[in-house]
Amino acid sequence: MKNSNYKVHFFPVDVTVEIEQGKTILDAAYKGDIFVNALCGGDGTCGKCKVIHGSGMIESMPTTHVSVSEAQKGYVLACSTKVMGDLEVIIPEESKLDKSQILVGNFPQFSGSLAAATAKTKHFKQDPLVNKIYLELPQPSLDDSVADYERLCQGIMVKTGIPLEKLTANISVLKHLPKLLRESKWMVTVTLGHHHSFVEILEVQLGDVSANNYGVAVDVGTTTVVAHLLDLSKSETVDIEATYNSQIKYGDDYIQRIIYAEQNDAMEVMQEGIAEDINQLISTLIKRNNLSIHDVNAVVCAGNTVMTHFLLGLDPTNIRKEPYLSSANLVPPMRASEVGIKINNHGLLYTLPCVGAYVGGDISSGVLAVRQDEAEVLSLLIDIGTNGEIVLGSKDWMMCCSASAGPSFEGSGISCGMRAAKGAIEKVGITSTFDVICKTIGNAPASGICGSGLLDCLANLVRSGVIDRTGNFQKGINTERLRKTDNGYEFVLVSKDKTSTKRDVVITQADIQNIIRSKAAIYSGISTLVESMGMGMNDIEQLFLAGGFGNYLDIRSAITIGMLPDVPVTKVQFVGNSSVIGAKMCLFSKDAYEIAGKIASKMTYFDLMSNNKYMEEYVSANFLPHTAIEKFPSVAEELRVRS
Amino acid sequence: MKNSNYKVHFFPVDVTVEIEQGKTILDAAYKGDIFVNALCGGDGTCGKCKVIHGSGMIESMPTTHVSVSEAQKGYVLACSTKVMGDLEVIIPEESKLDKSQILVGNFPQFSGSLAAATAKTKHFKQDPLVNKIYLELPQPSLDDSVADYERLCQGIMVKTGIPLEKLTANISVLKHLPKLLRESKWMVTVTLGHHHSFVEILEVQLGDVSANNYGVAVDVGTTTVVAHLLDLSKSETVDIEATYNSQIKYGDDYIQRIIYAEQNDAMEVMQEGIAEDINQLISTLIKRNNLSIHDVNAVVCAGNTVMTHFLLGLDPTNIRKEPYLSSANLVPPMRASEVGIKINNHGLLYTLPCVGAYVGGDISSGVLAVRQDEAEVLSLLIDIGTNGEIVLGSKDWMMCCSASAGPSFEGSGISCGMRAAKGAIEKVGITSTFDVICKTIGNAPASGICGSGLLDCLANLVRSGVIDRTGNFQKGINTERLRKTDNGYEFVLVSKDKTSTKRDVVITQADIQNIIRSKAAIYSGISTLVESMGMGMNDIEQLFLAGGFGNYLDIRSAITIGMLPDVPVTKVQFVGNSSVIGAKMCLFSKDAYEIAGKIASKMTYFDLMSNNKYMEEYVSANFLPHTAIEKFPSVAEELRVRS
Repeated sequence: MKNSNYKVHFFPVDVTVEIEQGKTILDAAYKGDIFVNALCGGDGTCGKCKVIHGSGMIESMPTTHVSVSEAQKGYVLACSTKVMGDLEVIIPEESKLDKSQILVGNFPQFSGSLAAATAKTKHFKQDPLVNKIYLELPQPSLDDSVADYERLCQGIMVKTGIPLEKLTANISVLKHLPKLLRESKWMVTVTLGHHHSFVEILEVQLGDVSANNYGVAVDVGTTTVVAHLLDLSKSETVDIEATYNSQIKYGDDYIQRIIYAEQNDAMEVMQEGIAEDINQLISTLIKRNNLSIHDVNAVVCAGNTVMTHFLLGLDPTNIRKEPYLSSANLVPPMRASEVGIKINNHGLLYTLPCVGAYVGGDISSGVLAVRQDEAEVLSLLIDIGTNGEIVLGSKDWMMCCSASAGPSFEGSGISCGMRAAKGAIEKVGITSTFDVICKTIGNAPASGICGSGLLDCLANLVRSGVIDRTGNFQKGINTERLRKTDNGYEFVLVSKDKTSTKRDVVITQADIQNIIRSKAAIYSGISTLVESMGMGMNDIEQLFLAGGFGNYLDIRSAITIGMLPDVPVTKVQFVGNSSVIGAKMCLFSKDAYEIAGKIASKMTYFDLMSNNKYMEEYVSANFLPHTAIEKFPSVAEELRVRS
Repeated sequence: MKNSNYKVHFFPVDVTVEIEQGKTILDAAYKGDIFVNALCGGDGTCGKCKVIHGSGMIESMPTTHVSVSEAQKGYVLACSTKVMGDLEVIIPEESKLDKSQILVGNFPQFSGSLAAATAKTKHFKQDPLVNKIYLELPQPSLDDSVADYERLCQGIMVKTGIPLEKLTANISVLKHLPKLLRESKWMVTVTLGHHHSFVEILEVQLGDVSANNYGVAVDVGTTTVVAHLLDLSKSETVDIEATYNSQIKYGDDYIQRIIYAEQNDAMEVMQEGIAEDINQLISTLIKRNNLSIHDVNAVVCAGNTVMTHFLLGLDPTNIRKEPYLSSANLVPPMRASEVGIKINNHGLLYTLPCVGAYVGGDISSGVLAVRQDEAEVLSLLIDIGTNGEIVLGSKDWMMCCSASAGPSFEGSGISCGMRAAKGAIEKVGITSTFDVICKTIGNAPASGICGSGLLDCLANLVRSGVIDRTGNFQKGINTERLRKTDNGYEFVLVSKDKTSTKRDVVITQADIQNIIRSKAAIYSGISTLVESMGMGMNDIEQLFLAGGFGNYLDIRSAITIGMLPDVPVTKVQFVGNSSVIGAKMCLFSKDAYEIAGKIASKMTYFDLMSNNKYMEEYVSANFLPHTAIEKFPSVAEELRVRS
């Protein structure tokens, strides 16, 4: 017998999740991509996942983590409380986020294990870019001799409201239609693909297979490629997979890769490489979830302009030549097969629109994800990848720029660097005795350190006095963790007996200088852009920090090292991989995709390189947090207290 | 030195034609597809092509055909008068049509050597389905860094008014764009393909090649296939070619062909066959006009429903099974290459929309050609091919039906039958001494007899008493032309010493019975449809007769044999091949194409076969003109006078 399904309504996020009887409230929160703090991963030991049980049948395991007075107020542990009926659950402030770790402000749904945007995307009408609908068509008769195709179109119109003149179909669909309609007894599922000004009937299938509709959202980064598998019929995230961009071998940054491709006549190699990376991600995702390639009907890719060009086989050479032009910013949807992406033969590939040569679809996607284009107050979006793109503005205007941060925040070019994956150190604590406490993703043995860990590590190295404000190790400190090698000094974070690699995880002097250069590029980008608009850092009311970091990013550490300006942490929201989040929003809702196009055309590009102040700012920012410590009053205070 | 071009403005048709200095007014009329009666073909001997010289420089050859009083009124012979400046020319009633031969009413443009609809199509906004426009784009700079594709789209929008969101392009266009724009110094020609709800950038070419844009309009008949090559940049007809449908070998009518295809698993054979016929026509046309396949960017096909299905590779089997359904009536435009039509790789194929299983795109096209959908009065369109389709109605409603006429009017199944091509007898006169005068197309030696010749021949055989009203030869008449062979009696029209085939051109008893059956099917279709609407033949205010006859069709003969009802000849207009004319109108104007879609969905199909009266009417119509002679009072009078 199949278990009953119940509805769990979470407050204050106002999201309802349907889940089987007997699953825990934490399971429901995970399913709905709602962040509930559960450090221990849900085995009842950490006691962090307290929620308030509002109403409905539950079954709670006994726990010492909930006090009698808490229990009287309805507190339970989400991980140890089973859903036995429709519930109302309130997530209290302390479970929404772990303040010692991360500030996610009012975007709880951006964190959690899937870092997904499901809840946020529900702000749009759920109407996938490629939709499957089931139709029971009227049977023809002598009195109703409408042709097969027109009968199908009328059925679609009745069910969806799409006007007949907007519908189109390839001849291959029409060829198979008569047999299929009759075999199915006029009960079929149509796959509809959204184009900007029309809707294409991509496929017609026997019977009701409308629930079998998947899409893949991809963040095509210069260094990492992240893919989310989505169930489009349920608007749910099914699974996530990530990999390094295999083009890395042709250069760390995209300009190097354009040059490589030009000099080696290797445009096709680049195209095939990135398509293959995406294919492998999709292949892994569908195998792991017992799906077939045929079930995936749409791929939405958000990437910077060069990655988007490489993926589509567009000529990127003018991007690096004055006046720095893209081949195309808003590329119409196409068959995924046209660029070698392996999904359903009829499946469509969409790319998020680029703003220009140096601000790509990943940023349009990010602005969409945080709805900066609708912000009432001045807000700043910073997306940190191999490049740090910065968008300043609100619903009235948006200026954007790109700072070359380098791949260090993605773990590339750092001795023990890795991308945010299982075993990556994402949090680093350093005690006054120079002892180190590391938290890894998935609580697995450490195998390296990812972007958020590097930020946190650098902040704590300076806070604890292991390094000074120039980033240099203080050789006099009393710890064996600091040691000299042939390549200079390094500091041991995790010793090899506790790592999965059986090698020490360390941070070297070179790593530290790398990270400082990266953060300086970003900070100077922000300050140049803000100042050029005649504004100051204090005018920023909202700061969205995005990037493929780990699950948690310590905002305070990002300020301490001077990557972010010294604004109150309450104004800062870590939004995770906003590029993939925006792509997912598009897959779930064609309205979101259309808005992405408007966002891209609304943004104005600001060229940092041609700005005299930028280099000056950059040099000053090559300090922790900055040469001008007065720009970081709270950090000055923090370091004084600790030193 | 290149000759100057002058404009000749023809009245009352209100059409202006540009032509080189020194060409004749008749040349200008031909070029503009304006009918000027010129029986002798323009060598000054017949004196029929009189026009009135309104204003402008001319050079006239002396002629005895123009009297002094006529000369004073400005009369000149169009064939013997050279254009030496911008002219105004009035076509007098007597030159518009040869009343003794043909009544074309106020549709002079439907006749003439090209039988084209150029003048008529000018009622629509000239905006070809596939258009080529030349753009000089602003060069990019640091201050104008719009991407290549967006720059192109903006250029198109500025020049054409097509909104950006309606424009789309295949990725292959985008791939070549950056190089092409720079090589061309931002001066390019774009080919734009019209789809129902969007416009596709099909191709981008260096420099201004906008004048190099051709299309082919095809009437895909069951028996004959006719193609007109059009210069889309000038809205002119360049050339015409026709052939027999090679599917004839699989059956005379389309039902036989469906059965053949089903029984022999030969759908693909049928598809490839008709595509090849069209390819050969196109190939002939482009070679003869020194064009390349690349210059042809669009093909518009108008065919009956089965021919359209075969051409597109759609399953036609349900057309012949109750409840008689098409696979699709309004098929979206597609790449011509998708069905093997060989034009420019990017070129589009459009098909005129079908009404249903038995009324096809040729009829939607015909209704468009004569604008029956806008008729203020009750009108009847009869399109005679292998099937005789009949449309009754006006701007308020339209009913249509299809009568199985057989291929005899297209020259098939008739011993000396041929399609309307050079050497085909299109007019037959029989004297009281049974002498025969034949007029052939192109005044060439006779090689056979086409539909209009057959009609005329039959009428004159009965008028002259060679046959009686049952169609039987009167063996007692005094002429050697009537003779007996192993296969029965036959009547010699042209003896072998005067034919190109060196064989007698004859009409046999079997031929006559064939034609009578064909005309009876058509007449009974008309009368059943008209009566079922509670109307009489006298209610018909306009009768459009269409079909692939010769250039001239004797309306009076068509009434005499009882193919058409006995209405005043002034109400009847012979409109030629209205199927190809409508297709041409679409090629010249996307507005016309969109209207064709509306026409098809506006028409209601009337099934003759399920109507009891039809068979009864058919039997009665197997007489000349009809069993009930009182239905043809003017014919009764005519035959009485002559007998």
